[in-house]
Amino acid sequence: MGEFELIRRCFMQAKQGAGVITGIGDDCAVLQVPAGQQLVVSIDTLVEGTHFLPGTPPAEVAYRLLGAAVSDLAAAAATPAWLTLALTLPRGDAAWLEPFAAALAERATELGMSLVGGDTTRGATLTLSAQVHGLVPEGQALLRSGARAGDRILVSGTLGDSRGGLETLLHPLPVDADVRYLQQRFHRPEPRVSLAQRLRSRVHAGLDISDGLLADLNHMLEASGVGAEVQQQRVPCSAALRRLYPQHASEWALSGGEDFELCLSVAAEQVRGCVAAAERLGIRLTEVGCITAEPGLRVLDEFGQPVEGLAQGYDHFKESS
Amino acid sequence: MGEFELIRRCFMQAKQGAGVITGIGDDCAVLQVPAGQQLVVSIDTLVEGTHFLPGTPPAEVAYRLLGAAVSDLAAAAATPAWLTLALTLPRGDAAWLEPFAAALAERATELGMSLVGGDTTRGATLTLSAQVHGLVPEGQALLRSGARAGDRILVSGTLGDSRGGLETLLHPLPVDADVRYLQQRFHRPEPRVSLAQRLRSRVHAGLDISDGLLADLNHMLEASGVGAEVQQQRVPCSAALRRLYPQHASEWALSGGEDFELCLSVAAEQVRGCVAAAERLGIRLTEVGCITAEPGLRVLDEFGQPVEGLAQGYDHFKESS
Repeated sequence: MGEFELIRRCFMQAKQGAGVITGIGDDCAVLQVPAGQQLVVSIDTLVEGTHFLPGTPPAEVAYRLLGAAVSDLAAAAATPAWLTLALTLPRGDAAWLEPFAAALAERATELGMSLVGGDTTRGATLTLSAQVHGLVPEGQALLRSGARAGDRILVSGTLGDSRGGLETLLHPLPVDADVRYLQQRFHRPEPRVSLAQRLRSRVHAGLDISDGLLADLNHMLEASGVGAEVQQQRVPCSAALRRLYPQHASEWALSGGEDFELCLSVAAEQVRGCVAAAERLGIRLTEVGCITAEPGLRVLDEFGQPVEGLAQGYDHFKESS
Repeated sequence: MGEFELIRRCFMQAKQGAGVITGIGDDCAVLQVPAGQQLVVSIDTLVEGTHFLPGTPPAEVAYRLLGAAVSDLAAAAATPAWLTLALTLPRGDAAWLEPFAAALAERATELGMSLVGGDTTRGATLTLSAQVHGLVPEGQALLRSGARAGDRILVSGTLGDSRGGLETLLHPLPVDADVRYLQQRFHRPEPRVSLAQRLRSRVHAGLDISDGLLADLNHMLEASGVGAEVQQQRVPCSAALRRLYPQHASEWALSGGEDFELCLSVAAEQVRGCVAAAERLGIRLTEVGCITAEPGLRVLDEFGQPVEGLAQGYDHFKESS
């Protein structure tokens, strides 16, 4: 079997879902956006050696790729629909491609998406770009702009776990349930799709935490023309992270990145309803601070004093939009 | 200025076009597909060292990327609308990024597209994936399937030029008008958007020639469940290619690839009308063979004898869909 045929066979497994008029196999996919819906798109790249360690199992790469990409759809409160994949591989290797494609198809199905097209090319560095397409009722996409002074800042789940999971891979620890939990959080992020859809009508602004809470919150503040105060001790950390990395947990929760949790700006009177709605989905939603008219982002300690020397909005190379 | 800011500044130049509710700068772009239109998408990757030579000027990379990607929209007879870009760079280098982004914005505007999102990451190999989004009236996308026995096979423009242009870069010749013409064809392919839209209602099947006429025609034959005969001497070559590479022109025209011309399957009685319509756009359309009920692709010489030993549907690593 040639490489061409291998690639075709691997990716043809993907199911053809709703709205797919023409899927894989033509020059383009032809898609039907339902009346009353807007199209929401985002493209996300993973590069071996930059975003995941060389030798990461192919299934973990597939889960991480889709988790990260679909998290942007969740941030817009969109429903995942379609996926295209640009895959650059050092070689056409069935031992890598087959488990990757199987995991991609499985995860795409779980997330309600169908793979509708792609481009597989040869290149020295394993590089994957996923473009995800979602749908949202007209005018209801959740944006970064719209946060208002007096809003409360809510975050879903716990933060810093992904950074902890990476640490356990870089500097291995004896494997126990906590280590496995952090690695799962790193490799298999769970985009908060249902939560965002449920809360969409109650939320002023939102985004997903990919660069770290402080960096991403700064994006929201800039887009909304406001400032914020964050109470450091309120930022939720998992017990696993606190046990394994007590010295770093708090810092990683503020700046670690790639947790793909949501950060939402909500009117004070909506907080209780949002927390209750999240609870019904089994998701913790924690108030970590508030939006201020005064610009800038201030992190306060338990005595209300500014915490200095935090990495805020670090100037990394990665820019997503 | 940091890298983050550099990237933002470079890509914010792009104009925001029709249907863009939210463009660059949020987690996702939000797009409005007009009523009665279907969405047509394709993703295309260029890798330095695989698809273009190291050291290729950034503006040429931008033109080639968009030419190749939009050609898939042309093949579907779609109107280009929106673009997202996944860019993996060895370093955040203003000397590369600025001319690249300026050329990308210029070419996107020429093609009627707006850049609505992207992801820029660091990686060892310069890799670019463009996802293009087009619009087509419901049910009118041109597909690879639909060719019927008795149809005539038409190709636009001339073939083999791109392969000739590559040759002039690999083994430089004294630069003259013909060399410049072939290099232009290699670096700045012109997707046949208007032609496909004009002919859409008269054509049974179509695709763009990215892998070479024979390879791509085979894709059409497979998708349509038919065969074909191609008259080798009818396949159009430019005077420049014939003059510079007389030994190779005919072979490259059949198998060279990356010309991004259209290959169309048209009922015999529609040929004259199609050729006239193309002429009004200043585009040559040449009948090179016919569709047969008998499967397989046969290339015939000027005596009607089968030509043997041609690279047909070569098993390269690249698979687009």
